[in-house]
Amino acid sequence: MKQNNIQLNDDGQLRHFISIEGLKRQVLMDILDTAESFISVEAQQVRKVPLLRGKTITNLFFEPSTRTRNTFELAAKRLSADVLNVNISASATSKGESLLDMLHNLEAMHCDMFVVRHAQSGAAHFIAQHVAPHISVVNAGDGQHAHPTQAMLDMLTIRRHKQTFADLRVAIVGDILHSRVARSQIHALTTLGVTEVRVIGPKTLIPNDIASLGVHIYHDMNEGLRDVDVVIMLRLQKERMSGALLPREKEYFNLYGLTCEKLTLARSDAIVMHPGPINRGVEISSDVADGPQSVILEQVSNGIAARMAVMSMLLGQRFANETEGGQ
Amino acid sequence: MKQNNIQLNDDGQLRHFISIEGLKRQVLMDILDTAESFISVEAQQVRKVPLLRGKTITNLFFEPSTRTRNTFELAAKRLSADVLNVNISASATSKGESLLDMLHNLEAMHCDMFVVRHAQSGAAHFIAQHVAPHISVVNAGDGQHAHPTQAMLDMLTIRRHKQTFADLRVAIVGDILHSRVARSQIHALTTLGVTEVRVIGPKTLIPNDIASLGVHIYHDMNEGLRDVDVVIMLRLQKERMSGALLPREKEYFNLYGLTCEKLTLARSDAIVMHPGPINRGVEISSDVADGPQSVILEQVSNGIAARMAVMSMLLGQRFANETEGGQ
Amino acid sequence: MKQNNIQLNDDGQLRHFISIEGLKRQVLMDILDTAESFISVEAQQVRKVPLLRGKTITNLFFEPSTRTRNTFELAAKRLSADVLNVNISASATSKGESLLDMLHNLEAMHCDMFVVRHAQSGAAHFIAQHVAPHISVVNAGDGQHAHPTQAMLDMLTIRRHKQTFADLRVAIVGDILHSRVARSQIHALTTLGVTEVRVIGPKTLIPNDIASLGVHIYHDMNEGLRDVDVVIMLRLQKERMSGALLPREKEYFNLYGLTCEKLTLARSDAIVMHPGPINRGVEISSDVADGPQSVILEQVSNGIAARMAVMSMLLGQRFANETEGGQ
Repeated sequence: MKQNNIQLNDDGQLRHFISIEGLKRQVLMDILDTAESFISVEAQQVRKVPLLRGKTITNLFFEPSTRTRNTFELAAKRLSADVLNVNISASATSKGESLLDMLHNLEAMHCDMFVVRHAQSGAAHFIAQHVAPHISVVNAGDGQHAHPTQAMLDMLTIRRHKQTFADLRVAIVGDILHSRVARSQIHALTTLGVTEVRVIGPKTLIPNDIASLGVHIYHDMNEGLRDVDVVIMLRLQKERMSGALLPREKEYFNLYGLTCEKLTLARSDAIVMHPGPINRGVEISSDVADGPQSVILEQVSNGIAARMAVMSMLLGQRFANETEGGQ
Repeated sequence: MKQNNIQLNDDGQLRHFISIEGLKRQVLMDILDTAESFISVEAQQVRKVPLLRGKTITNLFFEPSTRTRNTFELAAKRLSADVLNVNISASATSKGESLLDMLHNLEAMHCDMFVVRHAQSGAAHFIAQHVAPHISVVNAGDGQHAHPTQAMLDMLTIRRHKQTFADLRVAIVGDILHSRVARSQIHALTTLGVTEVRVIGPKTLIPNDIASLGVHIYHDMNEGLRDVDVVIMLRLQKERMSGALLPREKEYFNLYGLTCEKLTLARSDAIVMHPGPINRGVEISSDVADGPQSVILEQVSNGIAARMAVMSMLLGQRFANETEGGQ
Repeated sequence: MKQNNIQLNDDGQLRHFISIEGLKRQVLMDILDTAESFISVEAQQVRKVPLLRGKTITNLFFEPSTRTRNTFELAAKRLSADVLNVNISASATSKGESLLDMLHNLEAMHCDMFVVRHAQSGAAHFIAQHVAPHISVVNAGDGQHAHPTQAMLDMLTIRRHKQTFADLRVAIVGDILHSRVARSQIHALTTLGVTEVRVIGPKTLIPNDIASLGVHIYHDMNEGLRDVDVVIMLRLQKERMSGALLPREKEYFNLYGLTCEKLTLARSDAIVMHPGPINRGVEISSDVADGPQSVILEQVSNGIAARMAVMSMLLGQRFANETEGGQ
């Protein structure tokens, strides 16, 4: 719990956004409501609001990710912030100055927010522990730990289709073991009070202790999909796996790939989600990915709005406090 | 013809800008007139207009090109658009998601325009066929096919010096075979109604079917330059050539390099153009490139204005239609 | 002297900023006063002024430097300028067009300022000699020659702590031989009229002719630090050194590393400076770098303000003149 409290200031308001774990339902609902307001901004002719004019948002990417960086960059620009992209290869950091010295330098340049992506679990939390009081940290994915803005855009997408979270059955399918996305989704779904979260996958890709998060485990996809309202497919991250954890690709698709046939087991109005990029024919068939139940591209759009929400809340909150607190 | 109609919407207005081929004279004149108005913007103290504020222009460069990307980026920024640079190495695309999935993702992020550069002829057209209705595509060079904004900046430069296109004789010199620039220039010049277009080069570098475009072919440069009003030199793109298509560099310069001496064969007020970057001493001598008849650097300036014109027309058009059409 | 006059226009006002050498005390004081005004901008909620709106500042980095480029980019954005980053690997320049052709192209694109970093001494001066009248050049570090904006941010930091330059004793410690930073600092300090500048280092790392600049040379750090008001540590640039110029790292630290113990030899209110990035345990101990006398991070903050000052003076000056001079 202490690990997550770093996200809140003394008034219980968001200061960093590192992990869904430990955040109250109301905080998540506030993010969703704020994101909803930005969806209308996106629909305007001039897709830009001056909320963060004069603020500097720094993308600190220790792990390459064009797509996620693009969404954060677009979200920041549509809030009128200035964006500084800093790509750090592991070698550069080890040769040169220490990580903390680099952070303190960026702080001294009056950056306001660090958006952090790192291959090691805990990196964003470590950075949040060490930044100056005027900096907010957003976790854009740390190792196998968390990817909280992804989870929030997923919740936004679910809410826009299903209105409430109560009474929902949600299945998350695939490589749960290596997935920071799945971990953040599970925390978000249980905090928002869905009826049931199921994880579906081979034994080798489901961590032993996952049941302690309140989810039900299925190794048979046909059983697991029965009557669910939401199917979340995970990307098969081949590059994350070592050893013989999974059967060959074709066998995997037969067992855990989502096809139109398997999808009929879910409720007829079930939606299909995927964090992208999708591997067609590996974890999802093309007719499902492009089919009427797929909301995969809506997730991408909602990702901009959800990130705008988190960024504006983190920085907006701080300024409000500064003003009240007499600077 | 069908291939080019994709560029126009139902009202015959520009929606994409893929190729000069198939566009009517009036469309080209509109681009030139609009570009002319942006030249005065460039001369102002504050070199910026708010026409595309809140729009997102994405540079999709599958082929590296610092110079062309810079001009599109500057043009977009001077229209107050936000710019997202996406550099795609061939390998990244093949490993990860499909091209179309990537495009649909960028669409879902509410990008408004894709500026596409690709080593394969037809790539921009393929992308234009598959994008959502709210996206415009600009071809920034596809294989050996077309480079239409380059042709428009060249036409702008010619018009600023010669006022009208009628009565002009224009010679294009060099590697016609591999040149997307030459192909677009020929279409633009004939559409705008010049008296004569000549292509000059060795047999190995002039395609057999080029005469069908209405140009005259010369293999002797001294003959070809006689009495022309405009000399357009092409860059010798060594990297594009395979096999023994051309004589050694020095021999090439003797036969097809533009020198002061050869230039005297043209009209005394002829202008010398080159799309850059120039190979001094290969296709053009330094005293010509830097001499009084050279307008090479004006072409670069006009390139910003021409690209601002195309971008603002494509996006402005759409908005006008949306408003009229009741959103 | 002639070499530096290129920096001034006919009215004696700054046009380029290449080197501190040859600039009058009043010019340096103007930069410091202007920078001081930007420190208050940095403290505002909206950290942005519209001074250079519509101007284009081009970062021309022939030598990689994330940190320095970031500070120039942030400074430019906070002045509301558009920024174009052009990274030129040596190979690209040699293969393609000549340096001057590239510069003239950027000029034709209506860039207003080139911020130049280059491994060769004299590169920024060479470029300033060849640019069009509407371009200003800022030297962001050239070989072992000069790094004048670094010197100005250092002077700003000193003045904010010591109020005046008179009566100050300043020691610069380390690899003077390879340091463009040291050279610019020495010129700035002597021009601003400090009482004494000392350089401290091993014989192999202090150039023979340095005494001609009016500095005192010390090889014994304990002697050199006695009663100084300011200690400037230099980064040990291992990558710049070839041959056996310096003893092993540990021995170097014993002789010339700054420790709390050695620091007691300076005045009790002495400040400790370092251009960064610091090598902890090589030229400076962590307890000094993070201690109460260290102003290293203030230098970073002041770096943004100093660069905003130089940029706005160079471009602002020009506009003022243009207006007075009737365009």
